[in-house]
Amino acid sequence: MGGDHGPAMVVKGALLAARRLDVDVFLVGRTEEVREHVDELPDNVTLVDARDVIAMADKIDAVKAKPEASINVGMNLVKEGDADAFVTAGNTGATLAAALLRLGRVPGIARPALGMVVATSDRGPTMILDVGANADSRPAHLVQYAYMGGAVMERSHGIRSPRIGLVSIGEEDSKGNQLIIEVNRALRASDLNFVGNIEAGQIPHHVADVAVMDGFTGNIFIKTVEGVAELFFDELKRAVRLTPWNLIAGLLLRPELRKSQRRLDYAEYGGAQLLGIDGIVFVAHGRSDARAILGGIRAAGEAVRDGVLQQMHEIAERVPARGLIESSAANGEDAQDSQDSQ
Amino acid sequence: MGGDHGPAMVVKGALLAARRLDVDVFLVGRTEEVREHVDELPDNVTLVDARDVIAMADKIDAVKAKPEASINVGMNLVKEGDADAFVTAGNTGATLAAALLRLGRVPGIARPALGMVVATSDRGPTMILDVGANADSRPAHLVQYAYMGGAVMERSHGIRSPRIGLVSIGEEDSKGNQLIIEVNRALRASDLNFVGNIEAGQIPHHVADVAVMDGFTGNIFIKTVEGVAELFFDELKRAVRLTPWNLIAGLLLRPELRKSQRRLDYAEYGGAQLLGIDGIVFVAHGRSDARAILGGIRAAGEAVRDGVLQQMHEIAERVPARGLIESSAANGEDAQDSQDSQ
Repeated sequence: MGGDHGPAMVVKGALLAARRLDVDVFLVGRTEEVREHVDELPDNVTLVDARDVIAMADKIDAVKAKPEASINVGMNLVKEGDADAFVTAGNTGATLAAALLRLGRVPGIARPALGMVVATSDRGPTMILDVGANADSRPAHLVQYAYMGGAVMERSHGIRSPRIGLVSIGEEDSKGNQLIIEVNRALRASDLNFVGNIEAGQIPHHVADVAVMDGFTGNIFIKTVEGVAELFFDELKRAVRLTPWNLIAGLLLRPELRKSQRRLDYAEYGGAQLLGIDGIVFVAHGRSDARAILGGIRAAGEAVRDGVLQQMHEIAERVPARGLIESSAANGEDAQDSQDSQ
Repeated sequence: MGGDHGPAMVVKGALLAARRLDVDVFLVGRTEEVREHVDELPDNVTLVDARDVIAMADKIDAVKAKPEASINVGMNLVKEGDADAFVTAGNTGATLAAALLRLGRVPGIARPALGMVVATSDRGPTMILDVGANADSRPAHLVQYAYMGGAVMERSHGIRSPRIGLVSIGEEDSKGNQLIIEVNRALRASDLNFVGNIEAGQIPHHVADVAVMDGFTGNIFIKTVEGVAELFFDELKRAVRLTPWNLIAGLLLRPELRKSQRRLDYAEYGGAQLLGIDGIVFVAHGRSDARAILGGIRAAGEAVRDGVLQQMHEIAERVPARGLIESSAANGEDAQDSQDSQ
């Protein structure tokens, strides 16, 4: 029921997925509204009724207050083992809250992160995380993000020993705020293929397979990319309308410009994964069209097939937040998180 | 002597400024090297010898270790009252260090900020600050940035009651990390024209005249804009080369695309001001061409004419860091900065 376009686009995308992919789809929402967008129900699509809706503008509390909301009903399908994964175009904050409430964290993972895989200039994918699950972060969180992002790029994208970059304001290890300097030190000491600090402006040039950021900075990063891309294409449209010659020029360049636009419009990707949650959960962007929903369902299916969740459990055992937090506590941080991670 | 192109571009830009603007220019650096780039010395240009150079790769310690570096000699001209302002294309970190060492902060200002004025989609200017003077910030710092940025937009850009926006990950007051939530509260209580939180992606759409960010996030923001713009124009160049028709299309659109490029390539602005330093100091980007140096000198001249430094002293008296920090100390912060600000 979520997303800026309401159920229409979500249903359209889900039906596309049911037709094109080897998946069974549960459409969770007000059955009568969902039915409006379905002519004929394919065999591998089941309607699951959920009477309530979390609106884009709703507060996070609504997740607790509305147990019958589609987001809660969908998460429960995963919890009960009836579904392997949950895909939503709803409010990111509500999705995170419902995931924590219904599925919980993978034990040993201190904070879930929202990881987004983007294509870069030479078309190699980079996972950026956290793009907004947590506004305030500690070093141990970011170290676990690096492991989680690395596992996804290795398993789902077949990248051996993925290059982990830490986004900072300079490439030297000493550059950054206190958080980043501590994370840099921990990643240097880790068994990851850590390529050091990278600059945000270099992410589109594929300097790393995983770009680690705190959720505040990561969210500002993706919104800046979206904003600049949007501005650019708006200006291009304006330029094309100025003269008939410009219009012809625009038409000639359109196929190539479309490719750039797709690559840069992170809003259109539609596939950010909540990593560290004890279940496979994907958030498609609220502006998602049917293609983005299809992409989200495909990515969720691949995550199931690739055993991403089992990987997260292995990471939690191998790199428990507790151990990481004790070492940063020794560096003068308090150990508040060690409680969280129990 | 600074900048990626060495003295050539800086000298060229300074000579342009001497010819076009009502200014006297001191060219500070190794006289024999500077002379190589000057055919004939205009009356309003004076060479000032400085034997040493801080290289772009030098550590900040070099500023103390090399008192004869051009950056130190230039700052001293301002300190002694021989010059009204200092403009450099050198290393930002070294500029900040030299400014703090030679000129110091305006008493009462806790942290200097690097403020950059950028053009937006409808060509109205927005000042973004801090774009990288401080990697770690406290609420009081950002509140003072808001006042300093507002004063510049009012004085130098004639904007009455400039709209102050706080960059966060959502427009609601409750959205952001702890730092931003505290700053939001302080700005709501201030006498500024605070328009609330703004999204980074909206900055190019001129939603505020001043966009306040911490220096870590601000630096990542401008580098992301630069990186995306660069990527976009690289892709456009590639697209244009694919076929002769595309080439013609590219030529037709070139004049308009150039305008967009200039507007988005923050690297080309060449005018970031160190605010809160007890002197007028501008940092042109290291990649600066002669036009950017001319722009930096023009902006510095305007800052002198507009009494920007006196404004900073007034702000320090009216909104002293000490008072702000005491109130945030009451909110659980330690009062470390109250010492700094003495």
